[in-house]
Amino acid sequence: MISRLIEGIKKKNAPVVVGLDPTLSNIPKKILDKAIKERGETLEAASDAIIEYNKAIVDGICDLVPAVKPQIAMYEQFGIPGLTAFTETVNYCRKKGLIIIGDVKRGDIGSTSTAYAKAHLGKVKIGNTEIPVFNEDFCTINPYLGSDGIKPFIDECNGNDKGIFVLVKTSNPSSGEFQDRVLHDEDSTLYEAVGFKVNEWAKLSMDGTYSNVGAVVGATYPKMGEILRRIMPKSFILVPGYGAQGGSGRDLKPFFNEDGLGAIVNSSRGIIAAYKNEKYIKFGEDGFADAARAATIDMIDDIRQNAF
Amino acid sequence: MISRLIEGIKKKNAPVVVGLDPTLSNIPKKILDKAIKERGETLEAASDAIIEYNKAIVDGICDLVPAVKPQIAMYEQFGIPGLTAFTETVNYCRKKGLIIIGDVKRGDIGSTSTAYAKAHLGKVKIGNTEIPVFNEDFCTINPYLGSDGIKPFIDECNGNDKGIFVLVKTSNPSSGEFQDRVLHDEDSTLYEAVGFKVNEWAKLSMDGTYSNVGAVVGATYPKMGEILRRIMPKSFILVPGYGAQGGSGRDLKPFFNEDGLGAIVNSSRGIIAAYKNEKYIKFGEDGFADAARAATIDMIDDIRQNAF
Repeated sequence: MISRLIEGIKKKNAPVVVGLDPTLSNIPKKILDKAIKERGETLEAASDAIIEYNKAIVDGICDLVPAVKPQIAMYEQFGIPGLTAFTETVNYCRKKGLIIIGDVKRGDIGSTSTAYAKAHLGKVKIGNTEIPVFNEDFCTINPYLGSDGIKPFIDECNGNDKGIFVLVKTSNPSSGEFQDRVLHDEDSTLYEAVGFKVNEWAKLSMDGTYSNVGAVVGATYPKMGEILRRIMPKSFILVPGYGAQGGSGRDLKPFFNEDGLGAIVNSSRGIIAAYKNEKYIKFGEDGFADAARAATIDMIDDIRQNAF
Repeated sequence: MISRLIEGIKKKNAPVVVGLDPTLSNIPKKILDKAIKERGETLEAASDAIIEYNKAIVDGICDLVPAVKPQIAMYEQFGIPGLTAFTETVNYCRKKGLIIIGDVKRGDIGSTSTAYAKAHLGKVKIGNTEIPVFNEDFCTINPYLGSDGIKPFIDECNGNDKGIFVLVKTSNPSSGEFQDRVLHDEDSTLYEAVGFKVNEWAKLSMDGTYSNVGAVVGATYPKMGEILRRIMPKSFILVPGYGAQGGSGRDLKPFFNEDGLGAIVNSSRGIIAAYKNEKYIKFGEDGFADAARAATIDMIDDIRQNAF
């Protein structure tokens, strides 16, 4: 699967993924009001509004970027109707030729991780019928439970040509509480230790020069990104934290390899809520998809000019 | 919420939670065949079978234990219909007076954790209407992202009288890969460092003598349980790994405080698939709920006799 992502990045000359993390406060009033008028103040209204909003944004950006990253929490908060919107979003993006990175951050003990892996990357078997479920192309995984939790996902990577990004150093302010702790035995930090493991896991699912096993490292920690880039040479780094969370194009240099590959940078709010940003306010609320497109073009330019 | 759990434990004299982790291979053939006959080999058939199976088990055990712990991965693997079965299970258990611990192991950066916290413990606001979503009483949380990821859940604990169990030392064989690493600065392990943090977080949501912020520590690691019991005196420990994963009543002693409280022990497969265990085979496949009841009684006896 990573070779498909690389192909998409090269074709569009954009190592960029747009995060589809809808919140009701970012959805234009007109869309939300219409949904509430039709459905009442219900989870179904939220779901309808999210689908309409997402589709317009996807239409606005699908020729510019190779991939999207829906954050499942933003859908799960609206229950079954919300997860229906997640599924519809995944299906719509697939129709538009986009690669889908499910930001699900799952991770559990072996047998349970197998269930999550089948849910997001594989197929479940009912009687003699195998059915794909949420059917993303990649998903994000939490490493806290160790290899038991990761291996079932690697099996799905190999069996169904899929990929994963393992959380290594997350973009949030408190990520250092545990991830930055220095370990006694090897004088490395926990995030480095997780990075070393990712590099081992990466060897289990190679696909061309890169592995289907990638890592998440926040744009907000470029020095750690530089270290982790060296520790995991075969792993793509999914880089959140650009834009709204504070990272800029210049901060992204350390995340890339010398071949100009090895990283894909995510922006969510910075793109999907661009119409609220002073820079794009001229598009107005009705022009939210055009604002998203303009912000995506600017982000790609920033990365092309400053990150290599 | 922890005071409600304690009340339930005292009333039933059973610090025990039954894990509702349905797999199609553990559902009696008759139930699954009927569902497939009605619905075809579909996700909906899996959902129907799970609901029928769960309800019978809940009927069999609801007077014996204070709480159940549905593992959401086992539902999520069947997509939207599977999560509908999760919701129906939660609602059915609530009607039966059981406390519901959603084993969801979510955890993300702040704004995203807020979405998960609202989904599982709180309410989402649509227009002026606040709607509870999955509406568990407790849920499990992954600490890898630090306080940012935990605080939104603590807010829901305080705002809606709910509780959480933070993963500290998990029951699986590879849990030590990261959790057992010794930290340089304080010569403690990562799981101890997480335990110290849990003890800090616990102070933010006290409810009587215990906190709404508990911890997950596997029965398979009783020595670590003893250490963690001391580090987190105010936190209830949710103890998985009893039975099928290898823990026994005697191993549970270290998890309890001197007041006889402080821990609640989970068994999943050992109860819900008891009818497949030689010890309970006399109940037959049709008697799966009676077998679950018998296994629950035996588990409670084992804990009463050996764990205090």
